[in-house]
Amino acid sequence: MEKKIAVIKGDGIGPDVVEQAMAVLDKVCEKHGHKFVYTEVLAGGASLDKFGVPLTDETVKVCKASDAVLLGAMGGPKWDTLPGNLRPEAGLLSIRNQLGLFANLRPAVMYQELSGACPLKESVTGTEGLDFVVVRELTGGAYFGKRDTGSDENGMWAYDTMFYTENEIRRIVKVGFELAMKRDKRLTSVDKANVLDSSRLWRKVTLEVAKDYPEVKLNHLYVDNCAMQLVINPRQFDVIVTENLFGDIISDESSMITGSIGMLPSASMGGTSFGMYEPIHGSAPDIAGQDKANPIATILSVAMMLRLSFGLDAEAAEIEAAVKKVLEEGYRTGDIMSEGKTQVGTKEMGSLIRDRI
Amino acid sequence: MEKKIAVIKGDGIGPDVVEQAMAVLDKVCEKHGHKFVYTEVLAGGASLDKFGVPLTDETVKVCKASDAVLLGAMGGPKWDTLPGNLRPEAGLLSIRNQLGLFANLRPAVMYQELSGACPLKESVTGTEGLDFVVVRELTGGAYFGKRDTGSDENGMWAYDTMFYTENEIRRIVKVGFELAMKRDKRLTSVDKANVLDSSRLWRKVTLEVAKDYPEVKLNHLYVDNCAMQLVINPRQFDVIVTENLFGDIISDESSMITGSIGMLPSASMGGTSFGMYEPIHGSAPDIAGQDKANPIATILSVAMMLRLSFGLDAEAAEIEAAVKKVLEEGYRTGDIMSEGKTQVGTKEMGSLIRDRI
Ligand SMILES: CC(C)[C@H](C(=O)O)[C@@H](O)C(=O)O
Ligand SMILES: CC(C)[C@H](C(=O)O)[C@@H](O)C(=O)O
Repeated sequence: MEKKIAVIKGDGIGPDVVEQAMAVLDKVCEKHGHKFVYTEVLAGGASLDKFGVPLTDETVKVCKASDAVLLGAMGGPKWDTLPGNLRPEAGLLSIRNQLGLFANLRPAVMYQELSGACPLKESVTGTEGLDFVVVRELTGGAYFGKRDTGSDENGMWAYDTMFYTENEIRRIVKVGFELAMKRDKRLTSVDKANVLDSSRLWRKVTLEVAKDYPEVKLNHLYVDNCAMQLVINPRQFDVIVTENLFGDIISDESSMITGSIGMLPSASMGGTSFGMYEPIHGSAPDIAGQDKANPIATILSVAMMLRLSFGLDAEAAEIEAAVKKVLEEGYRTGDIMSEGKTQVGTKEMGSLIRDRI
Repeated sequence: MEKKIAVIKGDGIGPDVVEQAMAVLDKVCEKHGHKFVYTEVLAGGASLDKFGVPLTDETVKVCKASDAVLLGAMGGPKWDTLPGNLRPEAGLLSIRNQLGLFANLRPAVMYQELSGACPLKESVTGTEGLDFVVVRELTGGAYFGKRDTGSDENGMWAYDTMFYTENEIRRIVKVGFELAMKRDKRLTSVDKANVLDSSRLWRKVTLEVAKDYPEVKLNHLYVDNCAMQLVINPRQFDVIVTENLFGDIISDESSMITGSIGMLPSASMGGTSFGMYEPIHGSAPDIAGQDKANPIATILSVAMMLRLSFGLDAEAAEIEAAVKKVLEEGYRTGDIMSEGKTQVGTKEMGSLIRDRI
């Protein structure tokens, strides 16, 4: 199989971890006879430094002409004082939007080998670890609704609009149902339908879509309640689906309760096999270029790429198994290090994983 | 001292717990020679049943003519199928708004006696327990902004508006700073200033107000990061201040990580000594009227009332000490019961606390 991959190494530890993920992809190619053609492009801080904007048309063009995008991490204090539209985040939001990536899939998996890093008691998580997925709507809501700042005789005002159409809701809720069908057939839709009009429409559409998935057990949680349930009873979740802003909060909380934020990949999809894959952790500029970063989240992101964009399920599973094996053998990067384990750097972690593929 | 208290017992376990809290107030009066005059009014489900609306002008009038309002809990499945504007929640939002209660104070306290119920590991919470306060803006943002639902040739749409003026932001942020001054002088402002216009204004105003409080150590967290920090490092917080919708989510998550949701009181204030006091737990209709509910959150709510509305600090401290004593002596309601402790009902818990005042 031959595929084109646009690579955005990004800022901070982005290049460190992306290089290891690419080396893993190369190993997969070597073993299975695929060919992946990489085109490196800039976005975020790196793009700001070179072109003065966080995202160029050229980068978008290359991404659109590819079969998938691999992204490291964007941003850092260096660019934090720039005006909003010139910050790395603006590039991230714009690329999501321009590539039509409306569905953000965020697995929340607790690795038993890392249960010591989980902030929740074992009485809460159970002994089998956690394993659920948050499906976040990524191109609508307050992130992209009408907004403005102004002033009148009483001083300044500002607003953002959480706007959704039924079509936007339907397509993301469907992603949630489809994913639930492939998993344990349980879907939790998160909204604030007791207060918000956009949430009432969300719930209405969700109930309509549910009719096409009679096998899926659907429940609804208010977002405040969901934030609580994640902390006291996370095992109840299989797939969570929610709108953009709630998803931002709920998916980050979900990652954190697993105790394995350096381990978690993500995929952003747009209704075709094209997708953008990135670790959920940030750019950690303080340890950039020091061979300290944990490359596992990015390596697992390319496993998601193989599965979701290229349909290479077996290859994806091989990567995931290799990661598991390395953890079982006791190898750890600094962020997940604990007593009695063997600490390794970014490059060695990458090569240990490659050796087990 | 003579004070007028409007009492809204509310739905479900509301009457059970409010009765115990009133009995505690009576004990305080008896001991210290105060006089509290109660006027009972209806709101929420009880009001719907009697008047067909979740809030009447009469109830608002009585509350406004009082020095403080004591509220049990509102809502229940019985009224969940009513249209939005006729649900108990609508009554709650309307009373907050009509009484001008823009500042919701929610202490997040972990009682050492109940540390077993905390979902977080001791390595996360530390051994001294947790003690911070969430200050939530309560009469602005998406809860009260312009909203609409409609349809066009592409189907239905709906929106809500997160709208804030600088004055609305200033007055709530000031509450946060003032509270921090009385505590450990650390304030965390939570926003999503990397995306939202309303959050950028929030941050701007917060930085302005900060100039008047040079002693307070201020930091800013994005709401997604805050949801994570609460789970992995809650000890960093002293006072958190945030807008209405973020506050709804963050304050509930904060309550839950303490493991003592049946214990937590809240106050809603409007810039004067007038306030509305209520437990943060819900109406738990399944155990209503069965002498099972935990009255401590409501009893601690009247302690907040004595302190914040009546300036009776010593009396408030007496109630809090009595609660602590009863817990130390091993008495527990069913929700906080654990091995080796003595289980008691709602009424006995109330009387045990009264006896220690
Ligand atoms: C950086 C920021 C704009 C972004 C978001 O809020 O979507 C991030 O928090 C994320 O979740 O990917
Ligand atoms: C019942 C609901 C409208 C309310 C809110 O969202 O404010 C509740 O969750 C709360 O926090 O008091």
